[in-house]
Amino acid sequence: MPRYRLLIEYDGAPFSGWQRQINGLSVQGALEAAFLGFCGEAVAVKGAGRTDAGVHASGQVAHVDLSRAWRPDTVRDAVNAHLRPQPIAVLDAAPAPDDFDARFSATRRHYVYRLVDRRPPLALDLGRAWRIPRPLDVGAMDAAAKRLLGRHDFTTFRSAECQANSPLRTLDRLDVTREDGGVVVRTNARSFLHNQVRSMVGSLVEVGIGRWSADDLASALARADRAACGPVAPPDGLTLAQVDYPG
Amino acid sequence: MPRYRLLIEYDGAPFSGWQRQINGLSVQGALEAAFLGFCGEAVAVKGAGRTDAGVHASGQVAHVDLSRAWRPDTVRDAVNAHLRPQPIAVLDAAPAPDDFDARFSATRRHYVYRLVDRRPPLALDLGRAWRIPRPLDVGAMDAAAKRLLGRHDFTTFRSAECQANSPLRTLDRLDVTREDGGVVVRTNARSFLHNQVRSMVGSLVEVGIGRWSADDLASALARADRAACGPVAPPDGLTLAQVDYPG
Repeated sequence: MPRYRLLIEYDGAPFSGWQRQINGLSVQGALEAAFLGFCGEAVAVKGAGRTDAGVHASGQVAHVDLSRAWRPDTVRDAVNAHLRPQPIAVLDAAPAPDDFDARFSATRRHYVYRLVDRRPPLALDLGRAWRIPRPLDVGAMDAAAKRLLGRHDFTTFRSAECQANSPLRTLDRLDVTREDGGVVVRTNARSFLHNQVRSMVGSLVEVGIGRWSADDLASALARADRAACGPVAPPDGLTLAQVDYPG
Repeated sequence: MPRYRLLIEYDGAPFSGWQRQINGLSVQGALEAAFLGFCGEAVAVKGAGRTDAGVHASGQVAHVDLSRAWRPDTVRDAVNAHLRPQPIAVLDAAPAPDDFDARFSATRRHYVYRLVDRRPPLALDLGRAWRIPRPLDVGAMDAAAKRLLGRHDFTTFRSAECQANSPLRTLDRLDVTREDGGVVVRTNARSFLHNQVRSMVGSLVEVGIGRWSADDLASALARADRAACGPVAPPDGLTLAQVDYPG
């Protein structure tokens, strides 16, 4: 069966998350319904990252098998037509080899988290950023973030519901910068534990408001205890920006 | 009566525009209702730019007179509390002299228009940009834009409903650049005619898709005839970004 690789953008706000559910509208479910509308097939759309409710994507990747070899642009346009008016767009569809698996072939995931440190509520960034009503010390956050780089047991920054076999992960990037009137956290790794990015961002905010030092953050990591984590950042600010594959 | 100058951000999507109306929810009406809730006064909030339905603002300016001298931060925070959950935020409130008028004292208005040239529909930028399903020639648009700079009769780019006494305006900036996977038009002038920015952007898109030359744009301006204008750009992409005052 011809396999297609899809590049997907979505606003996570109206969805219960990526993953198909019995109750609740999921991104995966909406895509599968659009494929059913387009070609009459009950397909499984398999994503690289199972984003949580409210988390956005500008570069989610998925694969799907169809019984017929459609032109890739036809797949993209027809699925987009059937997705309307939901805020999900297939940016690209391309033929993929049979052994391409959006989740298991991925070599790197890139996430971006947006913060706005100001007292007034958000209007234009509502649902797209986490507002912190106090000024953030971005230099302190960025310096502390470097303490989390490398291979560690990330149990502290892992949801109790995480189903990964091991809490060991290698964090390759965690940068905090001030941009466009807000603060942006950029991170990447081969893979992340469930809620790892939001857990790390929540703890970095503790540093940014002066409640934690960089040593406190390093100690929290070393404890390998979920209770040592700061408040978990809300999903609104998080976007799955890119997924890398070999070649 | 103590006068306050307000700096205001809003998502224009749910509003019938800035201006108070008998029917329809306006930004001005929402602000006036919030002041009534805060201090029990039926005030008039006067804005620098009367943005149309669906047009956004990241830097609208307004003034309001209150019967009592509140602390400026109290005004900001209390009005924001009463605005909830509407996507309007008072970013700043400051005491202003009696002769400060948000509209008539303004020396310059800055607008930003966002375009995304791609075939797939918008998901993350829905309501924040105008999607053009063909690639835009940004160099050609920027070069043509320069033909509109300076003092001209802008009748071609003026709504039939425009109430200004004169169609003469001096356009000081009109730049088209490619940024972040989209195209951004930045413009400023002391003041604009009604629908002038959206009319200019719509005609620039004709240039961007190769239907008009720069000479066609210059001819359309010279005709001083509304019928010579290209399609008017939708409000979604437009944001009032900044208003300047003397000093």
